[in-house]
Amino acid sequence: MNTTKSIQVFAPATVSNMGSGFDIIGFPIENVGDTVQVTQHEKQVVRITNISGYKDIPLEASKNVASYAVIKLLEKLGVNTGFDIAIEKAVKPGSGIGSSASSSVAAVYAVNELLGQPFTDNELIEFAMEGEGLASGGKHADNVAPALLGGITVLRSYNPLDVIRIEPPEHLRIILLHPQIEIKTKEARDILPRQIPLKDAIHQWGNVAGLISGLYASDYEMIGRSMEDVIIEPRRSSLIPGYDQLKSAALEAGALGCTISGSGPSVFALAKGKQVALEVEKAMREAYKAQEVPFNVYSSSISSQGATIIDI
Amino acid sequence: MNTTKSIQVFAPATVSNMGSGFDIIGFPIENVGDTVQVTQHEKQVVRITNISGYKDIPLEASKNVASYAVIKLLEKLGVNTGFDIAIEKAVKPGSGIGSSASSSVAAVYAVNELLGQPFTDNELIEFAMEGEGLASGGKHADNVAPALLGGITVLRSYNPLDVIRIEPPEHLRIILLHPQIEIKTKEARDILPRQIPLKDAIHQWGNVAGLISGLYASDYEMIGRSMEDVIIEPRRSSLIPGYDQLKSAALEAGALGCTISGSGPSVFALAKGKQVALEVEKAMREAYKAQEVPFNVYSSSISSQGATIIDI
Repeated sequence: MNTTKSIQVFAPATVSNMGSGFDIIGFPIENVGDTVQVTQHEKQVVRITNISGYKDIPLEASKNVASYAVIKLLEKLGVNTGFDIAIEKAVKPGSGIGSSASSSVAAVYAVNELLGQPFTDNELIEFAMEGEGLASGGKHADNVAPALLGGITVLRSYNPLDVIRIEPPEHLRIILLHPQIEIKTKEARDILPRQIPLKDAIHQWGNVAGLISGLYASDYEMIGRSMEDVIIEPRRSSLIPGYDQLKSAALEAGALGCTISGSGPSVFALAKGKQVALEVEKAMREAYKAQEVPFNVYSSSISSQGATIIDI
Repeated sequence: MNTTKSIQVFAPATVSNMGSGFDIIGFPIENVGDTVQVTQHEKQVVRITNISGYKDIPLEASKNVASYAVIKLLEKLGVNTGFDIAIEKAVKPGSGIGSSASSSVAAVYAVNELLGQPFTDNELIEFAMEGEGLASGGKHADNVAPALLGGITVLRSYNPLDVIRIEPPEHLRIILLHPQIEIKTKEARDILPRQIPLKDAIHQWGNVAGLISGLYASDYEMIGRSMEDVIIEPRRSSLIPGYDQLKSAALEAGALGCTISGSGPSVFALAKGKQVALEVEKAMREAYKAQEVPFNVYSSSISSQGATIIDI
């Protein structure tokens, strides 16, 4: 009789960009994310056995982000083993809160645990980035890193991969509104300019510096005003119906800042403390009702927790 | 008989840019800077009475950065008074370590003290920026802010002016080599592109995020590798003879990073601790001897001290 080992791992949904920190900053939403059950077996094959929660996600191992990331991990390790992966998706693909990263991080984390942790965090990020490449054509880590590590992550560099983890300020809360429309990552990328004025770039990295300072110093107002993004948001916000009204409503209700999550369509605001967060959530819901677009809202702290073993 | 009030103020020389933090980050060198003696009188005129240390600096009040900044301050305040300013310059103009900022900050700080501190730090920075505008055609604050406040300063935004002050990591030291050649600020500006690839901008703000993280966390290695500047340094370094050899020598001797100070020609390295700093200084001196360009070297901690009253 074969012995089989199995593990259940959760990895959170994540917000990337945080305004000025385009392509480099990300953080998890608390208690929202995908869960995988990974079972090791002796066949040399990686299989997706089940996907629940959302439809239209590939079951074929070479086309599913989670199994694809695991295949890349096994290629690197060169061992003769295989895994069955069942995915329970809570994050809708295309929502702009790292749906693919959530699945692929949970899967590689689970496999690494079952194999006795042969890989470092940075290596796991790189395998999960392969999944991102499959999903969007770009091997980004701005969702993958916070989904794995938790906290606020900063990608200083891709080559070599250099990730910084910042503990979230205690009272920082996120209110995220997900309009149920589809924005293709490719479309959101194509709308961006390839060249930008140097003076805009300087303006942006002044805000990035302010954002990182605000996070270390728990200066909430500084965090809010440093989210200002003069390059990406003015272009991408045109893809989100009712964006300006939603942002105005959030800011008027006391949000520190409000901008696009990832490539959209989700929009998030940050607030200091639960009371203000409730006001902001109410205002955002109210403002978006006028759009006649169905939406859902997540409200939570910024999670310190990344990928987590739920059950062995 | 008139009563005259007089004050003597020192403001340090400063390094701006710090590699990736082009136009937004700056810090003072310890014990190097200009000293002004400012005397209030009842004539409604601002005069430069003496300049020592370096020649070819305008004595005419409307053309001298220090008196010009004071004139702007008095215009704002609208009081009927005047000042005599004597400047003792220790910072050579055109060296890339904030010579004009040192003089103008010392002058406006002194006048503000004599008048009973009517202005905030931010307002003083703005007056001194007027001096910078006179000197270089651009109202920059990346030397002015650290010369006034001390520590490592970050300009999040110019409009409104938003300055962050970070306490320097305890063991961080600077070794600065000033080759005695002239680089006009305008020439150093003209060599820069007006447009840059978005991907280079993202790379740069990843490094800016790393730099600010490294400073808050006293992560010296992170500070060093985050100084990497993919936009400005590759262009401006061509204006500095022997730059590549100097940088290589500094890094081989253990420097955390090495790049251009301001618009050059000064080049600075950072090191952790006095012992390594001594090695780096030795290596930089040795490497630059081959250039047949006269030079001088400053080696110090990163000063927490900005403008300071020396004598009343």
